[in-house]
Amino acid sequence: MAGSTFGNNFRLTTWGESHGAALGVVIDGCPAGLKLDESDIQEHLNRRRPGQSKYTTARSESDRVHILSGTFNGLTTGTPVSMVVYNEDHHSSDYSEIASYYRPGHADYTFDMKYGFRDFRGGGRSSGRETIGRVAAGAVALAILRELGITLLCYTYSVGEIQIDPGCFDAEEIFSNPLFMPDRNAAKRASDYLDGLRAKGDSAGGVAELKIFGMPAGIGEPVFDKLDAELSKAIMSIGAVKAVEIGDGVLASSNVGSVNNDPFSCDEHGNIKKTTNHSGGILGGISDGDVITLRAHFKPTPSISMSQNTVKRNGENISVNIKGRHDPIIVPRAVVVVESMAAVTVVDLLMSNMSSRMDSLKAFYTPTP
Amino acid sequence: MAGSTFGNNFRLTTWGESHGAALGVVIDGCPAGLKLDESDIQEHLNRRRPGQSKYTTARSESDRVHILSGTFNGLTTGTPVSMVVYNEDHHSSDYSEIASYYRPGHADYTFDMKYGFRDFRGGGRSSGRETIGRVAAGAVALAILRELGITLLCYTYSVGEIQIDPGCFDAEEIFSNPLFMPDRNAAKRASDYLDGLRAKGDSAGGVAELKIFGMPAGIGEPVFDKLDAELSKAIMSIGAVKAVEIGDGVLASSNVGSVNNDPFSCDEHGNIKKTTNHSGGILGGISDGDVITLRAHFKPTPSISMSQNTVKRNGENISVNIKGRHDPIIVPRAVVVVESMAAVTVVDLLMSNMSSRMDSLKAFYTPTP
Amino acid sequence: MAGSTFGNNFRLTTWGESHGAALGVVIDGCPAGLKLDESDIQEHLNRRRPGQSKYTTARSESDRVHILSGTFNGLTTGTPVSMVVYNEDHHSSDYSEIASYYRPGHADYTFDMKYGFRDFRGGGRSSGRETIGRVAAGAVALAILRELGITLLCYTYSVGEIQIDPGCFDAEEIFSNPLFMPDRNAAKRASDYLDGLRAKGDSAGGVAELKIFGMPAGIGEPVFDKLDAELSKAIMSIGAVKAVEIGDGVLASSNVGSVNNDPFSCDEHGNIKKTTNHSGGILGGISDGDVITLRAHFKPTPSISMSQNTVKRNGENISVNIKGRHDPIIVPRAVVVVESMAAVTVVDLLMSNMSSRMDSLKAFYTPTP
Amino acid sequence: MAGSTFGNNFRLTTWGESHGAALGVVIDGCPAGLKLDESDIQEHLNRRRPGQSKYTTARSESDRVHILSGTFNGLTTGTPVSMVVYNEDHHSSDYSEIASYYRPGHADYTFDMKYGFRDFRGGGRSSGRETIGRVAAGAVALAILRELGITLLCYTYSVGEIQIDPGCFDAEEIFSNPLFMPDRNAAKRASDYLDGLRAKGDSAGGVAELKIFGMPAGIGEPVFDKLDAELSKAIMSIGAVKAVEIGDGVLASSNVGSVNNDPFSCDEHGNIKKTTNHSGGILGGISDGDVITLRAHFKPTPSISMSQNTVKRNGENISVNIKGRHDPIIVPRAVVVVESMAAVTVVDLLMSNMSSRMDSLKAFYTPTP
Repeated sequence: MAGSTFGNNFRLTTWGESHGAALGVVIDGCPAGLKLDESDIQEHLNRRRPGQSKYTTARSESDRVHILSGTFNGLTTGTPVSMVVYNEDHHSSDYSEIASYYRPGHADYTFDMKYGFRDFRGGGRSSGRETIGRVAAGAVALAILRELGITLLCYTYSVGEIQIDPGCFDAEEIFSNPLFMPDRNAAKRASDYLDGLRAKGDSAGGVAELKIFGMPAGIGEPVFDKLDAELSKAIMSIGAVKAVEIGDGVLASSNVGSVNNDPFSCDEHGNIKKTTNHSGGILGGISDGDVITLRAHFKPTPSISMSQNTVKRNGENISVNIKGRHDPIIVPRAVVVVESMAAVTVVDLLMSNMSSRMDSLKAFYTPTP
Repeated sequence: MAGSTFGNNFRLTTWGESHGAALGVVIDGCPAGLKLDESDIQEHLNRRRPGQSKYTTARSESDRVHILSGTFNGLTTGTPVSMVVYNEDHHSSDYSEIASYYRPGHADYTFDMKYGFRDFRGGGRSSGRETIGRVAAGAVALAILRELGITLLCYTYSVGEIQIDPGCFDAEEIFSNPLFMPDRNAAKRASDYLDGLRAKGDSAGGVAELKIFGMPAGIGEPVFDKLDAELSKAIMSIGAVKAVEIGDGVLASSNVGSVNNDPFSCDEHGNIKKTTNHSGGILGGISDGDVITLRAHFKPTPSISMSQNTVKRNGENISVNIKGRHDPIIVPRAVVVVESMAAVTVVDLLMSNMSSRMDSLKAFYTPTP
Repeated sequence: MAGSTFGNNFRLTTWGESHGAALGVVIDGCPAGLKLDESDIQEHLNRRRPGQSKYTTARSESDRVHILSGTFNGLTTGTPVSMVVYNEDHHSSDYSEIASYYRPGHADYTFDMKYGFRDFRGGGRSSGRETIGRVAAGAVALAILRELGITLLCYTYSVGEIQIDPGCFDAEEIFSNPLFMPDRNAAKRASDYLDGLRAKGDSAGGVAELKIFGMPAGIGEPVFDKLDAELSKAIMSIGAVKAVEIGDGVLASSNVGSVNNDPFSCDEHGNIKKTTNHSGGILGGISDGDVITLRAHFKPTPSISMSQNTVKRNGENISVNIKGRHDPIIVPRAVVVVESMAAVTVVDLLMSNMSSRMDSLKAFYTPTP
Repeated sequence: MAGSTFGNNFRLTTWGESHGAALGVVIDGCPAGLKLDESDIQEHLNRRRPGQSKYTTARSESDRVHILSGTFNGLTTGTPVSMVVYNEDHHSSDYSEIASYYRPGHADYTFDMKYGFRDFRGGGRSSGRETIGRVAAGAVALAILRELGITLLCYTYSVGEIQIDPGCFDAEEIFSNPLFMPDRNAAKRASDYLDGLRAKGDSAGGVAELKIFGMPAGIGEPVFDKLDAELSKAIMSIGAVKAVEIGDGVLASSNVGSVNNDPFSCDEHGNIKKTTNHSGGILGGISDGDVITLRAHFKPTPSISMSQNTVKRNGENISVNIKGRHDPIIVPRAVVVVESMAAVTVVDLLMSNMSSRMDSLKAFYTPTP
């Protein structure tokens, strides 16, 4: 239970360090018969690749994925899908200095406390590059969901205090600006804000918002493996996330029941729907057929070039300026990670749900001719 | 994977419905040699028992716990600890009406969608009574943690928009007011606010805050089973929770790195500490030795007596007034549930961590004489 | 991971000691809509109940089961099914003596080594009564399998060196003799053999054989969770089992490939079948559509009244005669346990298999009208 | 739960097909601080490499392992250890014919039944090459165990009906003959026997025997995760194994209690030992401090060049002669696989056991200065 495996029926195991030979993921439980080739994965990996804009680290990596197992003639076979990305630009020399001290806001200190020492080349396992395995697995999950008519949309909701204006929401805009914001004006203001911070060597936090469309009702397991509980774990497990909200989220705690409750209504076709969606598509931990909505709050990038106080491993108090060019904000590159983690969570719970009724088992194993 | 089991090494499985014969929990993996009797459990169950104040449902239950296995001569034996609470006041007649329609904000609709029908006596498995098993298990986890010098403190942080004033924080006050607020003035104002809502038949949301003291550094597993990820799942799995924050939580997303990063410092005794705690005691998903802080946002009680629109199972649109006396706010009785879920999460990760180093294994299995 | 939980999608957790207040099991993942009442469970528990013949211990227990949760109006609801049997005849005085020494062939010594002490009233958790939870859960699994057209038959295959004669196999005889042997003559000879051993205060080993009829092809997961691997764990986890055989079992290791390979053949209806069944219905860890066959070898009952050498906890070498009347053979009462463990294993793997193909997921979640 | 993951605290996930790009394994939960480099792994992989004698397939593979993550400066870091072996000699043309029909004794038919189609290049995932991941992980487990003073010895116990003579047991001989038999005479006779079968195009079954020395008492979890139950699953999950025996195994079922029970005795140093070892070092599913003994029965290699009857996928009944040179017996190359699976099982249970006592937790987390 060392924490690198996620999911039960659709199960991923990621591995790899920022400055090791490679990073990758093994998916066990991928259903047979899914059309899948490397371009399906590459498309999503490219969304988190470094070096694409002034808001991302200059590290030069093509992040090309290789599928090593689990497919045959363009289809998954039901056996584990192993995917690998080899590290190209891993000059450990860049990082030799940080071996001696603990970077504030990073996991240097906690890894040392846990393991007695650490791979000090970059963040090692706590680097943002760890998400490569998540995104590769997420691409497979997204391919499965697309076949089932379920689609996900994730974008930058806010940068510092600059939020998107819901009235100006434009889904097409998301892929048109380097901040992945669905509001051109907000993106412009956020860009200016980030330029100011970069000039000072500082960084910003932000929020990613996710919507899941086409989710059938009934998904999620009561009590501990609720849909929202599993999504929270999935999202909070992404580095730098400090809060997760479902539906109205933190606003729900200052609201009253008569407003927060979503009334049900039945239309002329006999379809039951909620007339509002404060719940974010989840009631009692189970999907209610409405759009799932979720927000992930990311702290500011901990790597800043401003001077900071910290300690060396030997206890000496020092002041440091962390060199190198770092992302001034994590959210834009994390948008695809949030989407990926949500996708693998949903696929896993869709699978669990298949055996929840006796009539499903009978239909599966004793089909009437 | 039907969702009633939590944890790996310290593993609980809860069971029971609000109007069935009993509710309970089995803990597997409780270490041998822990002093434990029923009074240790009862003390915590009493904190969530109904009928204790005007803010809790009038249902009359003594909620007396019985330990059926796993202890011998006052000590745990290492085998499963099975605990049961028999339901006393389960008059199904009170609930016969709600069988026909879907209560807004409840899990009635989603259970029907998932299973094809539901136990409509009360909330069944989605009732607040489901937390009895969590609290009984939490009491055992808290007893273990106390032996290790780790203590938890949980209280009501806000009721609607009324928050405690950090400057007036008084831990002793928590158990002196029925709202479990550590600020007498805030509790008084919250009480007035709730009285007003109750008079209208409405309900309020609120926030529970948790602190964990004495947590050793190094706990939590990298990547998916991070301490904050597991805590988020644990807390979000409690009914009515819509957001979870760690440390600065949602504030972190509008902050800048130069403020959000916690500097490290070494004192004259060679102890390394952070000088601030924006991280909430967790860096890279691993405890950093500081106080763990967490907030859980609860939506307002969905059971309100004001008139609401909804549908019957047959699709008929109706207006309903839900009868019975319900808690006007969930948080005060949920405080012990949040504390319990955090406790079982921490015990489980403390256990996982024991095998994370080769020197630990050697010290355990080849002790020097 | 303290070992009292079995299965993933259909998951049981057993608890209870031989001389505690009660024993029981929680099943999580039981599908909703299964007809189930206490008599379905009781029927199977009665097959392992003590005091039914001269070959079983005289302990007087009605072993009456109570279903405490998970059913409503005679149907399972999809939530955990908790079942309990209260101990009636648990006079600890009978066992006070054995607290001081280690019974040969029992788990007294190993429990002390693991936990530092043990519940010395009877076998505690290592007692044969621990199987009550397995059989109660097995009864539920058998009810599910019956609905899917899968049936299990388990019986005593040998007592000491006395085996059934395959030519005299009579399924109806199984429930007509107290040894549950499907061969009247063998049962008679075995009975005489056991009478002789009992007179000396000795005990016998034996073999239980299991057949599973109606098993669909394709069940079992490649590599580690093979059908035969999971069955082996399930059966070997029953106390006193020392060997498990699938199909030809140990004979396969002295056979040649040209005989051991089962040819495939297609009949006029297009049905593909093997013409022999050396494989025992499993190829590559996956069911091949043929009858599953399995044998479990049980050691002789370790509790014998003949004099034995052993040690006290304090290291004193002593000779003991264990008092009380004990089963002179374990197998007849274990037959229902073997059947139960096989049933829960099969149900779990049937559930896992439901998500193994993309076309299954599509048929489930996007049914064509 | 698609079956490619084994273990809880020390957890391996294998992947790869016989004719894909590569095969590998990810170990999650490997403790930090273990000395490990590729030569430690290669040594064990070489024991199962093809082409080493006339008893192994002629497929030419160097099976060179690459460690892609989880080590730094020659030590494991606590993060996942990912290992890969690239396939070199995977000419799919050799296998194109077998795509159309089902080889008797192979998993061709069952994979088709499960997934709707299969990777028909060689055995795909059911090939013996799948064990590469097991052996690589086993090498890591063996390195851990060596540090704890636990050693494993595995060898060929029988070939067909030719068994080793316990009186001639010579451990050094194991690595001196290509059959890995610890008895030179038996190896000679077995060799002659196999030559005869090869000349006919037939194959033989056999038995691998394993001993574990230095095992501490107290390892294994009661009830389902017993040491023998976990070992049985581990061993039975190896392709072609049809029976597993612990200690006396099948002989126990025809024995009597007065002989089968192992007496305890205390020597002058206060050490408690059993004076015989019918139990095979396991009582009640927990190690008793004695040598663990286990036997795995392998069926004959299913690939034989003699003519066999079978069917094509389209139902046509045919007769086939499978071409290519195949191992006439599986056991010699499987010896290292049995050893590997036992090693990973033992490491996992050693880890689980660390949290079984309250005094262990206290010693770990609140050490006295």
